[in-house]
Amino acid sequence: MKLPRVSRWVTLVGLLVLAGALAPATTALAKDDPLPSWNDGAAKKAILTFVQRTTEESSAEFVPPAERIATFDQDGTLWVEHPMYTQVVYCLDRVPAVVEAKPELARVEPFKTVLSGDHEAIAKLSMDDLSKILAATLTGMSVDEFAAEVEKWLATAENARWKRPYTRMTYLPMRELLSYLRANGYKTYIVTGGGQDFVRVYSEQAYGIPPEQVVGTAAGTTYGYHENGEPFLTKEPKLLLNDNDAGKPEGIHLMIGRRPRAAFGNSTGDRQMLEYTGAGGGARLMMLVLHDDAEREYAYGPAQGLPDTKVGTFSQALWDEAKKKGWVVIHMKSDWKRIFAFEP
Amino acid sequence: MKLPRVSRWVTLVGLLVLAGALAPATTALAKDDPLPSWNDGAAKKAILTFVQRTTEESSAEFVPPAERIATFDQDGTLWVEHPMYTQVVYCLDRVPAVVEAKPELARVEPFKTVLSGDHEAIAKLSMDDLSKILAATLTGMSVDEFAAEVEKWLATAENARWKRPYTRMTYLPMRELLSYLRANGYKTYIVTGGGQDFVRVYSEQAYGIPPEQVVGTAAGTTYGYHENGEPFLTKEPKLLLNDNDAGKPEGIHLMIGRRPRAAFGNSTGDRQMLEYTGAGGGARLMMLVLHDDAEREYAYGPAQGLPDTKVGTFSQALWDEAKKKGWVVIHMKSDWKRIFAFEP
Repeated sequence: MKLPRVSRWVTLVGLLVLAGALAPATTALAKDDPLPSWNDGAAKKAILTFVQRTTEESSAEFVPPAERIATFDQDGTLWVEHPMYTQVVYCLDRVPAVVEAKPELARVEPFKTVLSGDHEAIAKLSMDDLSKILAATLTGMSVDEFAAEVEKWLATAENARWKRPYTRMTYLPMRELLSYLRANGYKTYIVTGGGQDFVRVYSEQAYGIPPEQVVGTAAGTTYGYHENGEPFLTKEPKLLLNDNDAGKPEGIHLMIGRRPRAAFGNSTGDRQMLEYTGAGGGARLMMLVLHDDAEREYAYGPAQGLPDTKVGTFSQALWDEAKKKGWVVIHMKSDWKRIFAFEP
Repeated sequence: MKLPRVSRWVTLVGLLVLAGALAPATTALAKDDPLPSWNDGAAKKAILTFVQRTTEESSAEFVPPAERIATFDQDGTLWVEHPMYTQVVYCLDRVPAVVEAKPELARVEPFKTVLSGDHEAIAKLSMDDLSKILAATLTGMSVDEFAAEVEKWLATAENARWKRPYTRMTYLPMRELLSYLRANGYKTYIVTGGGQDFVRVYSEQAYGIPPEQVVGTAAGTTYGYHENGEPFLTKEPKLLLNDNDAGKPEGIHLMIGRRPRAAFGNSTGDRQMLEYTGAGGGARLMMLVLHDDAEREYAYGPAQGLPDTKVGTFSQALWDEAKKKGWVVIHMKSDWKRIFAFEP
């Protein structure tokens, strides 16, 4: 069809207007759903409602930007913790290097068992044994040496089930939640039972959370000098903060100095952090991830008849407290459309 | 003079152009001097050069915004510390209330001496005596009760020499420096030998520094429950971090997890923080405030023959290390045009 000159322009303008009308609609749709990996349900609604109530200036529960603090447990809340915490895998992987430096350890338990490679025996190591391995692999070196070792390990180590780097084992819905809160003026913190120095190595890359916003189990360091006079810090086996259970609110006070407005966890180790958060005035959001998806990830509790576990225990008592106090349980199976970013 | 119509317009346009040309010039002048309370000199120049070198994208020493960390000692660096640290004045002022709650203390030293009001005797109290007073006035209460007490005290207490609230005893040139660094993407931290919980009460108001960016001497807390089940944190007399000397870099690692790009202090207690900062690669700025202005503030060292002091000692050894390592000494007397905002 050959249109007269003017009509052709009119049509072109019409198409542009149409495109213009469509483009914002598409953008608006994406903007309207900041949590695309979440299914519609109580959990997603609780998040959206909380953000609206605390950030709209007309809201009676408006929270000034400076007070918008959100704290996240890491293992089992932001990334996979089963069958074993990533940091424990790192420590076990480091044992050969530690023994190479101190050959006498090869004949001493628990190092002997770890070197044997006998998975069943390793899985049976006691907490006391694990403590010895953690002390040997997490202390005694400079903080810079430690960070370099962790970085090197993360670059090649893979999760055994998914054959992916550990930093890709993060939950996509939780990363969307982190971004959504930050876009609404919330300062997001990790508050983890894991080692503070360990998590700080990758927190920025994995979660967009800078090292100074990672609170974790922390040991002391000692300031000293190399022979050339250059100062350095040595990691010491002296526990300053056991950032689990009551240690979480204690760690939040020590490192942040403000009560969070929102707190997210998945196990009994997060109970006190959620209690402390909830005890503040005004709108607060407390959420717990329940691992009830054996197919796509793992299923463990023992709350609600799920299999018992020592790694990330979600007890029935925690479930009961959550129901009583209005904490929102995130059901991994029904609340999350996608779990990992690498899923098709 | 009655101009023809067109000419009148031309003149008006000319005046507007002139005004336009002047207006930006005025703005540019204000913008060009972000440190108006500093005299031109080596100190001011060092600051301006450092910021330029680390923030201009074309600079070989450009520092990514995330790594722009600047740490400031408080007492003697950001506000007056003579004749006695403000926090010690607070603790002495709190003694009557502590004795009211525990009347048996009235007959026990050092409380008896403090209650006597004998300034000479109080000034002679030993470090051990002071420790007892600090423990009695800084621990044993909930963190919320403590913050409320400090806030109440700050609202009425006054510096004895200037008859002003303590939060107005801040150094204007240093507040300009804080603002200038922040305007250039630096995250500003206080790293103080003072109590972390004490400084956090007023850091936002006095310096624009939020509580989570205050690192200080810190004691542990214990999580517990009121009878109604509400949780709270009690301040315990258990030292976690003595944020002085080597404790400053140790505290920076614990609470921030990054090496600062710039560090500011005024006494031997800041030496290790400046050493640690300077030992990093690339452009770094280390500065020390020297109190050499007995007339407008105080004069103490004993560096450079200034009177000796136990409060904020600037030793000759520190002076020598500064000169050797290229740390910049801020001479209060010659570098600061104004010291306090309330000066005429």
